Amino acid sequence: MLSRKIIDELTAVLGKENVLTEKEELACYSFDATADMPQSMPDVFVTPTCTEEVQKVVEIASKNKVPVYTRGSGTNLSGGTIPLKNGIVMGMVKMNKILEIDAENLNAVVQPGVIIQDLNDAVAKHGLIYPPDPGTVKTATMGGSVAECSGGLRGLKYGVTKDYVMGLEVVLANGKVMRCGGKTVKNVTAYDMVKLFVGSEGTLGIITEIIVKLIPAPETRKSFLASFKSLDDAANSITGIIASKVIPATLEIMDNATIKTVENYAHVGLPTDAEAILLIEVDGLPEVVAKEAQAVEKVCKENNGQLKVAETDEERDNLWTARRAALPALAQVSPTTVLEDATVPRSEIPKMLKALQEIAGKYDLKIGTFGHAGDGNLHPTILTDERNKEEMERVHKAVDEIFDAALKLGGTLSGEHGIGMAKMKYLENEFKEAGVEALRSIKKALDPENILNPGKIIDLEG
Amino acid sequence: MLSRKIIDELTAVLGKENVLTEKEELACYSFDATADMPQSMPDVFVTPTCTEEVQKVVEIASKNKVPVYTRGSGTNLSGGTIPLKNGIVMGMVKMNKILEIDAENLNAVVQPGVIIQDLNDAVAKHGLIYPPDPGTVKTATMGGSVAECSGGLRGLKYGVTKDYVMGLEVVLANGKVMRCGGKTVKNVTAYDMVKLFVGSEGTLGIITEIIVKLIPAPETRKSFLASFKSLDDAANSITGIIASKVIPATLEIMDNATIKTVENYAHVGLPTDAEAILLIEVDGLPEVVAKEAQAVEKVCKENNGQLKVAETDEERDNLWTARRAALPALAQVSPTTVLEDATVPRSEIPKMLKALQEIAGKYDLKIGTFGHAGDGNLHPTILTDERNKEEMERVHKAVDEIFDAALKLGGTLSGEHGIGMAKMKYLENEFKEAGVEALRSIKKALDPENILNPGKIIDLEG
Repeated sequence: MLSRKIIDELTAVLGKENVLTEKEELACYSFDATADMPQSMPDVFVTPTCTEEVQKVVEIASKNKVPVYTRGSGTNLSGGTIPLKNGIVMGMVKMNKILEIDAENLNAVVQPGVIIQDLNDAVAKHGLIYPPDPGTVKTATMGGSVAECSGGLRGLKYGVTKDYVMGLEVVLANGKVMRCGGKTVKNVTAYDMVKLFVGSEGTLGIITEIIVKLIPAPETRKSFLASFKSLDDAANSITGIIASKVIPATLEIMDNATIKTVENYAHVGLPTDAEAILLIEVDGLPEVVAKEAQAVEKVCKENNGQLKVAETDEERDNLWTARRAALPALAQVSPTTVLEDATVPRSEIPKMLKALQEIAGKYDLKIGTFGHAGDGNLHPTILTDERNKEEMERVHKAVDEIFDAALKLGGTLSGEHGIGMAKMKYLENEFKEAGVEALRSIKKALDPENILNPGKIIDLEG
Repeated sequence: MLSRKIIDELTAVLGKENVLTEKEELACYSFDATADMPQSMPDVFVTPTCTEEVQKVVEIASKNKVPVYTRGSGTNLSGGTIPLKNGIVMGMVKMNKILEIDAENLNAVVQPGVIIQDLNDAVAKHGLIYPPDPGTVKTATMGGSVAECSGGLRGLKYGVTKDYVMGLEVVLANGKVMRCGGKTVKNVTAYDMVKLFVGSEGTLGIITEIIVKLIPAPETRKSFLASFKSLDDAANSITGIIASKVIPATLEIMDNATIKTVENYAHVGLPTDAEAILLIEVDGLPEVVAKEAQAVEKVCKENNGQLKVAETDEERDNLWTARRAALPALAQVSPTTVLEDATVPRSEIPKMLKALQEIAGKYDLKIGTFGHAGDGNLHPTILTDERNKEEMERVHKAVDEIFDAALKLGGTLSGEHGIGMAKMKYLENEFKEAGVEALRSIKKALDPENILNPGKIIDLEG
């Protein structure tokens, strides 16, 4: 518990309306969107309204060695925002202004509490887009999404969040503010602190302002649904499309378990007898789209795919609604949905899919798999029930094996969800001892007292 | 001077042929491509042939607290490879194998000594390109270019080196090897160590293996020369092209001083009476190129530009030969060429060009300016003579003001050359005290004894 004195100090800085201490209020911040994680109550929830207030909160925290857990909408999927060691949860939702849209230089300056979709709506008026689009684009904040380095459906062609963050203002663990990067397309002045803070999950500094790159909106786009009787055919189509030098904006896969569940939930006419479907979108100038669409059709047909083109906007919307429904649909089937983001080089997708089937069989679990096939980022989703202790033991063993399989195939622990609490125990499997030591030294360098989101990514006591 | 014992240890590890100690041999490594820098002799020059040998060299260096200056071809332009505090210069040129071209996953694995152009030649057979293309593409090594985060002519559309490095093997200051990143398109496992090492100029670790992203080669391209009677017209064309949603592969500018010098040197038919020229290339599918070319023509004509299209390959080659001749041509005019890479947001180019003219006038100096206008990365080039002490004083004052001007316009100290020794004194102007402290803490975390390229980027004693 925090002393009354600290609460009073926080209240003096932020005003009463920005300091919550009632149990019922705090309970909302004791968990996040991640399943199968412990809950932990914060001592206080604060909502600063400007950088100076963030600084003062951090100064108070630093002076009293109290943890600060920074939080946007809490949509992350690795337990990143759970206040494991209690202390202060700092909600950034009141710093939610779009400060500038600089269409001439193709960038925007935003506060961390801006919702991703709101930014996209604002820049659409200038014919521009901000490409990163995590599934939670309508609820997630820019700050959270930068701290987690969100991926999304367009990663293959457009990259992920880190590819769009040009500059940051960050409050450091010592309460000082630093700026790095800026509005220039090129910047190699000293170490790339921007990219270091992106994806650092609030453990190295608190993001208070973000400069993001924008790009011209594609003029047109074309979406397909390709159904396959075998996983191999689907997988070969994925590599075939890339081999034909087409980089689709989106190239998603769903396995049979996911198809059935989604169809049952969303009724959009998915082929429930298909072993796998691919959802593909190409975009750009009309001439490019026509040419790439042709190539996509050719590859899918060569691999025994049944192709359906979305002829109208409504049909297109249906397709993508189906894709975005994958997680909620799977989540409805069972009380607990353990969603992973094991990621492998694209060519290893067939092997990874096979490994997932084997793991499901071995531990007698229901695993639905969908995800960003084009960039090798799969979402094996285990449908289970937290209350069933025996089954959860099997789930945990299966998760261990999923990550083992991904690493063995030259993959990574996390394509887009981050490490948070959920994957800390696997970190050394990927980074080995020397790498973990290096990561730890970075954390110690920027947060020597371990007050920023302690207990995430890397264990300083370890 | 290193003791005989250390030389013997190095020789035992590397063999005689990889340990040079003669003065005449060492002199070659006492400087690099940067003008107006001090020379400094290494005590020994070593050429490891594998990662284990690099490890052993670093272990010896660490044990004896001897500096290690890692070096590729020494083409950097910020004094990055000068062995300021003597010690060991480690040349990576013998680790020059392309280990793998993985066309299916669009990547390649190379050792640091591979010449950039050699990688491009090898991947061209697969219809792929490695886009970063510094002016020294035919001599610079991949390792040096990753350590410096090279930019080049295609940065606007294709990004710079950091955008293409997916994974690294690095020998740390403690002699241990770590790997980070890999062959997956998405990777958010812990801190982005890959991007931290890219551009760290050999001060945080020694790169021993690099996984780079490749992209399909553009099918076709079209190049233009646009001449303008005023700098403003040229600048307005730059922003006009981007505003019309065309992102050219290359968008270069040359001012009148540069045009005249290049024409005098290369005789390619540049309009010596133009106040500025733009060299523009659009690339991609033929349909896209046609459309974008039309847009470029329209914008240039609206801004009173005279347009010349390269109709043949020869004409195109002439244009880009002219551009690549800018630096050597300017360098021929005077004994010393001080080349800077002040970078501003694109929209500020007119103001930056004006500032450069004023600075040239104020200090009575000849400054030719050319560079990557599309990404705001200008190369003001001061033509001078190191032996003229009085003039060099004016040069140094002018350089100070050039960086001041860039920062005031929201720019950065370095778009693509890095900080090295040359720009250390300006670092705090951009990063401020809190930022410099953070940079220093990172350096101390990964190289606590300051043996890796000491005296560059950040002064640990400071």
